[in-house]
Amino acid sequence: MKKITLLGSTGSIGTQTLDVVRQNRDKFEVVAISANRSVDLLLDQIIEFKPKYAVLYEKESAEKLKGMIPKDIEIEILDSIEGLIKISTLDEVDIVLTALVGMIGLIPTMKAIEHKKDIALANKETLVTAGEIVMKAAKENGVKILPVDSEHSAIFQCLNGEHKKEVSKLILTASGGPFRGKKRDELIHVTKNEALKHPNWSMGQKISIDSSTLMNKGLEVIEAKWLFDVDHKDIDVVVHPQSIIHSMVEYIDTSIIAQLSMPDMRLAIEYALTYPNRIHSDFERIDFKKISTLTFEEPDMNTFPCLKLAYDALDEGKTYLTVLNASNEVLVDKFLKEQIGFYDIPYYIEKSLDAHNSITNPKLEDILEVDKWARSYINDLLK
Amino acid sequence: MKKITLLGSTGSIGTQTLDVVRQNRDKFEVVAISANRSVDLLLDQIIEFKPKYAVLYEKESAEKLKGMIPKDIEIEILDSIEGLIKISTLDEVDIVLTALVGMIGLIPTMKAIEHKKDIALANKETLVTAGEIVMKAAKENGVKILPVDSEHSAIFQCLNGEHKKEVSKLILTASGGPFRGKKRDELIHVTKNEALKHPNWSMGQKISIDSSTLMNKGLEVIEAKWLFDVDHKDIDVVVHPQSIIHSMVEYIDTSIIAQLSMPDMRLAIEYALTYPNRIHSDFERIDFKKISTLTFEEPDMNTFPCLKLAYDALDEGKTYLTVLNASNEVLVDKFLKEQIGFYDIPYYIEKSLDAHNSITNPKLEDILEVDKWARSYINDLLK
Repeated sequence: MKKITLLGSTGSIGTQTLDVVRQNRDKFEVVAISANRSVDLLLDQIIEFKPKYAVLYEKESAEKLKGMIPKDIEIEILDSIEGLIKISTLDEVDIVLTALVGMIGLIPTMKAIEHKKDIALANKETLVTAGEIVMKAAKENGVKILPVDSEHSAIFQCLNGEHKKEVSKLILTASGGPFRGKKRDELIHVTKNEALKHPNWSMGQKISIDSSTLMNKGLEVIEAKWLFDVDHKDIDVVVHPQSIIHSMVEYIDTSIIAQLSMPDMRLAIEYALTYPNRIHSDFERIDFKKISTLTFEEPDMNTFPCLKLAYDALDEGKTYLTVLNASNEVLVDKFLKEQIGFYDIPYYIEKSLDAHNSITNPKLEDILEVDKWARSYINDLLK
Repeated sequence: MKKITLLGSTGSIGTQTLDVVRQNRDKFEVVAISANRSVDLLLDQIIEFKPKYAVLYEKESAEKLKGMIPKDIEIEILDSIEGLIKISTLDEVDIVLTALVGMIGLIPTMKAIEHKKDIALANKETLVTAGEIVMKAAKENGVKILPVDSEHSAIFQCLNGEHKKEVSKLILTASGGPFRGKKRDELIHVTKNEALKHPNWSMGQKISIDSSTLMNKGLEVIEAKWLFDVDHKDIDVVVHPQSIIHSMVEYIDTSIIAQLSMPDMRLAIEYALTYPNRIHSDFERIDFKKISTLTFEEPDMNTFPCLKLAYDALDEGKTYLTVLNASNEVLVDKFLKEQIGFYDIPYYIEKSLDAHNSITNPKLEDILEVDKWARSYINDLLK
């Protein structure tokens, strides 16, 4: 029985994680769950999965939840970052699946690593903003960082049984998002609702916007660099609209290993939880009679400058990645609030990267400081 | 330095194997080579690779070769099956790459296994006709059977680091051969030269005809069954005309691992020789900007009944596979000599399967006996 803390249980990854647990009650036990402020859904999850701990990040919501817990359920309700840290470091927990959105995931993840918990990582911002520090801590504590993104899960699977020094490059596939094939002048006035319509994946709002700008793929390139310790020049992005091949690894002998499945995040979630084993699953299987055609094209970095900005930030070095991530978080939020346009996202990210004075060998505090700086820089610019 | 005996050095796989050796002189040494009767090419290979032994199967050709060896070259020239056995069992040899065509490969392979030589197997008839016996001997002697076929090499790579009990099925890809998309009535009068024109691979004559009938894929299904110990009902064939995905493994969690490369047999040959490592190679790399589209379709077993006959023979049991293989060898030879038509191949194979009295738990001698019976049965029918 694997005992799980699930950070972010009410979001897209969180609810799909609980679905995997629901199908495999004999293998997984959810010890703790957390949400930001979704009281009602968290209550439903508490009643169904009976965790020993639940965190609502917002203190008010946590108080409200306390009054709603049925009498026969024994549970400790916590709040704020202290609550997240507590449930990420419980003695009885084997693995922390972190599906929080944004920078907020960093501190609980670091604490979990220090307490030797394996990490199933769906929160890509953690590695984007502080990849070197997180991976170093994981190594020092003998902790596995298991990717939950479908792309990184694919690469992780394609590396099974292979020698790291024989990898020649990683090939991340990208669906291309809802605006694939469009040109810049067609996209200047796109709305939030158009950007949220992803062709293949049903996901949270932040990641859906990131997919529409291709920043999501940029963040994945950065995440892949840290997860797999590969130079970013050896990470290619190929647009593959069908989202069947989830990513590939090319080896020095020219052989490529690829991982394929129907698009279903639950497979990547399950693999992170069962690794190094696989379990029998009822997800839809690929039927090559129906698939019939897989296509590939180059990403259009002119129309989607966010992907290029991510490569540029990798070229520049460490705290530039923190700035890229923080600025993007703020700008996507403003785009979702319809306060800025689609191309304001890359425009202001570039401005923040230009204005940043990078710190070499940053510590965790430096990263938190730079993150704060970038957020206020963007907020000030757009006041 | 890996020391190699290469059985069948003048054929398509043989010359490509020597090309791999040529590119990696620091890693591989060819101790012995063999051919059927290609005196001139074998002499060239002797001069270039300076093996200690060379076999010409035909005694006359061997005698001729002896007189042509330059004085400064020290080499032992042998002939016939005894010669093949001697070079397959040399103390100094690490691995025997068997690229003989047809049933003839069986005895030297068995002898090599008994002498604890790893086997790089390009001679698929060996496993088709006597798979159970060969795999049992390999297991008893702690010998690796390393596939050289691109499909089996792909599956072998897709199994790296995975658990055998978590495999749900093997998916062999097939180019579909030169007659893909044609119907039965269009193929009745096809000639040897039309059948030899393979769209993606340049191969020997026997395997080219087998590709045109899809018997090659049938033999590969049988080979896969023995190599990977998988029930034939869990081996699918998918037509993939581009020959980029060389085969795949589906796991119980619905994840599929695939191996891709440009069509080049040297990669599979090299991998068998370097396994479990990979070495830097200059084969053409896949460029997804150029590939752009991969397609998949079902095999047409009505137009290509040989594939169905192979599955049927697997269903029936052991010596039926020997009959399938022997009849096919005789019939392909007759088709190449323009003595029979294209659809005579499946027609007479089916006749021989129908006429056969199967032997359960056959020994090697039984298999040799059944092989002889099937050949004379076909020859008698077509006298």
